[in-house]
Amino acid sequence: MSSTPGKRETDGRRPLRVDARTNRERILTVAEEVFGKGGQSASTEEVARLAGVGIATVFRHFPTKAALLEAVLVQRFDRLRDQAEARAHATDPGPAFFDFFRHLVADAAGKIAIGEALIDAGGDGGDEAARASDGLRRAVGALLQRAQRAGAVRDDVELPEVYALLVATSQASARAHLQEEVRARMLTIVFDGLAPDR
Amino acid sequence: MSSTPGKRETDGRRPLRVDARTNRERILTVAEEVFGKGGQSASTEEVARLAGVGIATVFRHFPTKAALLEAVLVQRFDRLRDQAEARAHATDPGPAFFDFFRHLVADAAGKIAIGEALIDAGGDGGDEAARASDGLRRAVGALLQRAQRAGAVRDDVELPEVYALLVATSQASARAHLQEEVRARMLTIVFDGLAPDR
Repeated sequence: MSSTPGKRETDGRRPLRVDARTNRERILTVAEEVFGKGGQSASTEEVARLAGVGIATVFRHFPTKAALLEAVLVQRFDRLRDQAEARAHATDPGPAFFDFFRHLVADAAGKIAIGEALIDAGGDGGDEAARASDGLRRAVGALLQRAQRAGAVRDDVELPEVYALLVATSQASARAHLQEEVRARMLTIVFDGLAPDR
Repeated sequence: MSSTPGKRETDGRRPLRVDARTNRERILTVAEEVFGKGGQSASTEEVARLAGVGIATVFRHFPTKAALLEAVLVQRFDRLRDQAEARAHATDPGPAFFDFFRHLVADAAGKIAIGEALIDAGGDGGDEAARASDGLRRAVGALLQRAQRAGAVRDDVELPEVYALLVATSQASARAHLQEEVRARMLTIVFDGLAPDR
């Protein structure tokens, strides 16, 4: 019992607990990449292959494809929320808000592909994904409020319509495969609309 | 041969040609309503029933469900294009453009439901739908240009990003089932972003 779990990753004597956790994380990371790209080859088998584990290992951690996809979505929402929260104390709340808006739109393609794969797999996102999605929404709300207090965003807009625009421009970017330049020009219009009276 | 085709709609002696045309139109009208609402009960059988024709009559006009849905989409795009073109000579090009933008967003739910039913039916919209969609886009482009010339829309925006915003806000309204008030407030932000420098 003098071994230090998790320290010596390659000696083959790691306790199963750590091994299992590492496998789970590796599967999730690979799954996010595979399903985020979408397309025909996105399958649980492909995830197992690229993660270097057997399909049985994948199913031990995630009993169904829907469970795997939901875990990927939750991971993605949580990471985005962390990124939003990390900006909540930025010196300049205006750019913190607008840059994060731009970041979310750019990130959307993968998230939508995962969401669609989840629906195809018969899942509905589930409680965990809804909770994670709400967490991101709240974090965006905090960035918006700070930007409004700093005078960088007009104070007569509220989160529902701003979030609707965020979702709208994200989905359009992802689904319509907008060119980067068109996406940038589209966001310029939205950001000008959010600016206080010029 | 002295009958006047199409005039006496109820005497049961109309030439088949007119009868067939009437049937086709009635099927299309009903199909737009049925598939525009979406949901489980939207089927070719339901269309036949509500149009008061046999299923064989539907399939004589539209050999596949995808063919029927494509015809519905084309009819819808063409009607919206007609509406746009009718506004192209409005006295005040600013409201003509913004009101039509608002109208398209409000109209989107049905169009998206039809488009999704078409994809489910294995269709891809086809050449006719692409042509009709392009026609609508061009008509919106003409309204935009007039509004820009009249100074109601900033002159540094172009159709691709404006159309991307139109598609984005339409899809978000339809898919996210936005409340009417949130939709209106979302469009206020977009329209303010499109306004010339305040």
